[in-house]
Amino acid sequence: MSTTQETPLSGTDRTRLRRSKERGRSERAALYEVLDAGMICHLGVVTEGGPVVLPTGYGRIADTVYFHGSTAAHSLISARTGSVCMTVTHLDGIVLARSAFHHSVNYRSAVVFGEPRLVHDPDEKLAGLRAVTERLAPGQWDVVRLPDRKELAATAVLALSLTEASVKIRTGPPIDDEEDYALDLWAGVLPVRQSFGDPMPDPRLRPGMTVPDHVLKRA
Amino acid sequence: MSTTQETPLSGTDRTRLRRSKERGRSERAALYEVLDAGMICHLGVVTEGGPVVLPTGYGRIADTVYFHGSTAAHSLISARTGSVCMTVTHLDGIVLARSAFHHSVNYRSAVVFGEPRLVHDPDEKLAGLRAVTERLAPGQWDVVRLPDRKELAATAVLALSLTEASVKIRTGPPIDDEEDYALDLWAGVLPVRQSFGDPMPDPRLRPGMTVPDHVLKRA
Repeated sequence: MSTTQETPLSGTDRTRLRRSKERGRSERAALYEVLDAGMICHLGVVTEGGPVVLPTGYGRIADTVYFHGSTAAHSLISARTGSVCMTVTHLDGIVLARSAFHHSVNYRSAVVFGEPRLVHDPDEKLAGLRAVTERLAPGQWDVVRLPDRKELAATAVLALSLTEASVKIRTGPPIDDEEDYALDLWAGVLPVRQSFGDPMPDPRLRPGMTVPDHVLKRA
Repeated sequence: MSTTQETPLSGTDRTRLRRSKERGRSERAALYEVLDAGMICHLGVVTEGGPVVLPTGYGRIADTVYFHGSTAAHSLISARTGSVCMTVTHLDGIVLARSAFHHSVNYRSAVVFGEPRLVHDPDEKLAGLRAVTERLAPGQWDVVRLPDRKELAATAVLALSLTEASVKIRTGPPIDDEEDYALDLWAGVLPVRQSFGDPMPDPRLRPGMTVPDHVLKRA
């Protein structure tokens, strides 16, 4: 894995940052960090009617991300027949500047381009599904009922290689125009956080079932 | 406005839900709610190299959403010359089922399709910028330095009509296969929340500047 981690992110025409180049990161580790901190991505595909962007789960194994969906899902069918763009964004803060123009957000985002392949190999398919499930709900795969033959057949798993990707990160205070620092205005960052609440048990829980440790420790 | 609110969302080929139709909402009020609870959207455009999905700010005025960006921004130029898809997603919970297959998420999402128009009218341009700023940072527009002529010229504002949109919402516990309810497994929902932290003052703040009420009340 270390050789992979040391491979910098590609600089193709699509991934070359045009705006705010100083926010770009070229280390592969930064890509992994942004992807591994997320739970859903926004997947863009092109259909006959134009672009479609849908939120969906994903998982990563080394330099491949996996998506899954019903074999009948429209967006997944489009994804199978062409190029996609997968974006993961973490909103970290609202940047409150002294001028409207310099208002911004602190964020981490990863954008991956490529043509997904439909996974046929049963072992890779299961590994991909595990990766997607574990990204959302770590620890669950080891305890729940795993997919049976029928469920596997109803599920399409797509693999997207992390060969063409870019990462953009903004941190820190607002950057105001020099003369605006003299204004009598408060400026700074309002942090935005994502957290988990207390687990809400299914009303149909069997008696005596307690929240498992792997769920509790996230809440 | 009430006539607008009562106009149900359109059922075009793009917005007709193919999967999980029971999660669709056709009230315009639901669309407004999802949009007005968000701070960033994911905007999908089609470029020569395929789809591109980028996080960006937005604002809503009645049945129009506004985006802004540098006049030189690549994605914004693509958006100006064709159809876009704008998606706002709120992740509300991780749905932990008894089977891997039925793991899911609780969410609210809005998807809007259309061809944005470049805003030329100076009043609408300013109103659009205000809407974008106020979505991220309510109350700021009334206190900060507003855009000057040069900043306005450097900023493109796009308007997208809310004529073709869909809303999808999932709430509630997992839906397991009937026979799986007999399994000795915990199941339920792990709520996901977005919240604000304590405001972090800009290191270059003038002495005596305190956090304004409109910022404090969000934190």
